[in-house]
Amino acid sequence: MRTPHALIFAVGDELVDGRRLDANGRYVTHVLESLGCEIDGRLLTPDREDRIAAMLAAGLAGGPDVLIVSGGLGLAEDDRTRDAVARATGRPLVVDAAVREKIAGRYRDWGRELPAGVDRLAMIPEGGRAIPNPIAVACGFTVEHERTLLVALPGVPRQLKAMFERAVLPVLRDRLSGTWPVRTAAIRVVGLAESEVDGLVRDVVRRQPQARASLMTTAGEVEVRVGVRAEAEDEDEAEATLERLLAELSATLGPHAYGRDRDSLVSVVAGLLRDRRLTLGVAESCTGGLLARAITDLPGVSDVFAGGIVAYGNAQKRTLLDVSDELLETCGAVSAEVCLAMVRGAMRRLEVGAAIATTGIAGPGGGSADKPVGLVYVGTGTPDGERVTRHLLTGDREAIRRWAVKISLDRLRRELAGLPATGEPVEAGARG
Amino acid sequence: MRTPHALIFAVGDELVDGRRLDANGRYVTHVLESLGCEIDGRLLTPDREDRIAAMLAAGLAGGPDVLIVSGGLGLAEDDRTRDAVARATGRPLVVDAAVREKIAGRYRDWGRELPAGVDRLAMIPEGGRAIPNPIAVACGFTVEHERTLLVALPGVPRQLKAMFERAVLPVLRDRLSGTWPVRTAAIRVVGLAESEVDGLVRDVVRRQPQARASLMTTAGEVEVRVGVRAEAEDEDEAEATLERLLAELSATLGPHAYGRDRDSLVSVVAGLLRDRRLTLGVAESCTGGLLARAITDLPGVSDVFAGGIVAYGNAQKRTLLDVSDELLETCGAVSAEVCLAMVRGAMRRLEVGAAIATTGIAGPGGGSADKPVGLVYVGTGTPDGERVTRHLLTGDREAIRRWAVKISLDRLRRELAGLPATGEPVEAGARG
Repeated sequence: MRTPHALIFAVGDELVDGRRLDANGRYVTHVLESLGCEIDGRLLTPDREDRIAAMLAAGLAGGPDVLIVSGGLGLAEDDRTRDAVARATGRPLVVDAAVREKIAGRYRDWGRELPAGVDRLAMIPEGGRAIPNPIAVACGFTVEHERTLLVALPGVPRQLKAMFERAVLPVLRDRLSGTWPVRTAAIRVVGLAESEVDGLVRDVVRRQPQARASLMTTAGEVEVRVGVRAEAEDEDEAEATLERLLAELSATLGPHAYGRDRDSLVSVVAGLLRDRRLTLGVAESCTGGLLARAITDLPGVSDVFAGGIVAYGNAQKRTLLDVSDELLETCGAVSAEVCLAMVRGAMRRLEVGAAIATTGIAGPGGGSADKPVGLVYVGTGTPDGERVTRHLLTGDREAIRRWAVKISLDRLRRELAGLPATGEPVEAGARG
Repeated sequence: MRTPHALIFAVGDELVDGRRLDANGRYVTHVLESLGCEIDGRLLTPDREDRIAAMLAAGLAGGPDVLIVSGGLGLAEDDRTRDAVARATGRPLVVDAAVREKIAGRYRDWGRELPAGVDRLAMIPEGGRAIPNPIAVACGFTVEHERTLLVALPGVPRQLKAMFERAVLPVLRDRLSGTWPVRTAAIRVVGLAESEVDGLVRDVVRRQPQARASLMTTAGEVEVRVGVRAEAEDEDEAEATLERLLAELSATLGPHAYGRDRDSLVSVVAGLLRDRRLTLGVAESCTGGLLARAITDLPGVSDVFAGGIVAYGNAQKRTLLDVSDELLETCGAVSAEVCLAMVRGAMRRLEVGAAIATTGIAGPGGGSADKPVGLVYVGTGTPDGERVTRHLLTGDREAIRRWAVKISLDRLRRELAGLPATGEPVEAGARG
């Protein structure tokens, strides 16, 4: 059975210039991949009818099985997708009477006049099928063009998703049924460079001809995404091959592989804290709230997270974390000694059994030869003791802050799980 | 003079499925727009030579003045951009001797063997010009294809940017010089829905035939981006028209227009704090560090930001912010009374003259009929007094938290600037 191919278009000036993310393309890609589709490309076009039409025509010329386009179906002057599809497929636009009646009904219900030009919202290319919008008034449509099923949906993600799931997915399942199943999963890795992960992963994956791996690095984490295609219409086979491969990869990556798929360092750390019935508090200087924010991004974390203290100034390190004037003067705010005192202050003041502290120089200013931009101390405290490590991070302010958060969560994960620590251990513990 | 057109390609599976953002496309788009180019589209292709070649060929067929492609120039098996360009332009790949020598020299300096297949890194389409990589070893190149200048650069943003600025920008400036200048700017708006902003903006912009406006909403803020094209080769005219338009828009949008271009709510608030010689502290419950993080994202903010307390648990609200047991029991943690107590606790404990406090229900769990998910109280304190407002926000956990941060910063901005407050005022102030 042949692998079906898909192209995904999104229309909007703000997508082209990067001010808005194409969340729809991402969503549609994942759904189509789960149906065994290969995505041939994603195309972002500006709000100009000639450009949309030209790019659609070029895309249709390649004969994809499915072409999805989102955005540009509203009433605004620069909503040109209907007209562009009409041009690219050579079909005039016609008003779908049922959709038009539905739209008129909505306006009657609201007690409002039908706006001028509202018929546009009910227009579809001749021979196509309208897709009603359960949330707003702009309809979508499907149209068959040679061997391609072209699907047009509104750009508002909630509307697109609702319409895709109700009206498009059943059609696609029928159309693409019988294709070889693909299974994908991700392993999440921390504490190794992408090149190191790459070396380890390639060796394992290369032995599986129907497997593929791709790596992505973000702020100190590498995601290894593995895809396995079955040799025939056998979902179980694809599943079993994937599981075998994941087990092999986890063994190869060792303690650096901290989780899978939707795991995050925070969710793994929260699980370890729950297992040991500990609550966590944080004391932040250079990360300035980013660590607390990363933790509280996780819904339901309040059973293990007590709170945090962002001690940006020295006065606050003193009054809120009991860091002594003497330490601040002799060692400086960015030092192993102060970091250790912050850990202990957080444990005492927040009344917690586990703590993380960060102090460093995120830049762009504030660095010196002795304490350069990127120098970060990370301290952890658990019932087994406190430990401070020193890290020299590279990148801009944002990258240094995000990386420091990842390192500090990984440090606590390793402490709680009894795994070897990363980073350069420093002696502050002995003196603190 | 004709407007030049550009197409921007990025190669990588992780771009197609949305795991990585195409930061290069965004950067290149902005630079090209500032040179007066119209961007005809952005295309994300997977790491497959046939797909890259097909999409490049389709793009070249439209005859753009410039086509930029990033990524896929390394040594990995799935780095296929060189070969795809060779196929799409019908030019064989040849080794650039100078680049090859440079790469060999680098490996000699490192004391390492030349890896197998390293010649690939020095290959360019016949007749093209190599662009040396000042940071790593993979070179880029330009090649003339009919009326198009095709530019290929590595996908690592730092390398791309360095090579683009050194080697590509001068070539493009020469090539595109004399085109009609375009000037763009953005006005940042808070406290109005996108549809309200749209109504106000369209009326102003429609009167200018050579002007265009586009809106983007993110977490409670609307960015109004305005572009003005001169009628001829007259930079001053474009500049003057733009300034006139911006002044008109600012007047129309009133106190909701808080800044321009690179301003952020934080930078504006920091400026107001500096003017009044105040320092700021924050007390966060539902925003859990996100507010402190937003503030400390701004480099050099430490002169006006003292720190924050993330009091996620009730115990921490008591011990770190002096919120009384009685208030927590009678009113609950999510209440105007507790919010006001948090403001006062933050001012006292952080020893600051200005404070913000947030308490609410970010969800997805924890809501009730009385206190639904999305209910957020925002408190501000300045030398002029304290004030609490009540807000009912919609969206998921992330959206509610981000919106609460925007609202709270805007609330303080208005207090400091003597502008009318937003949100529903609550009576806690009288009782607190």
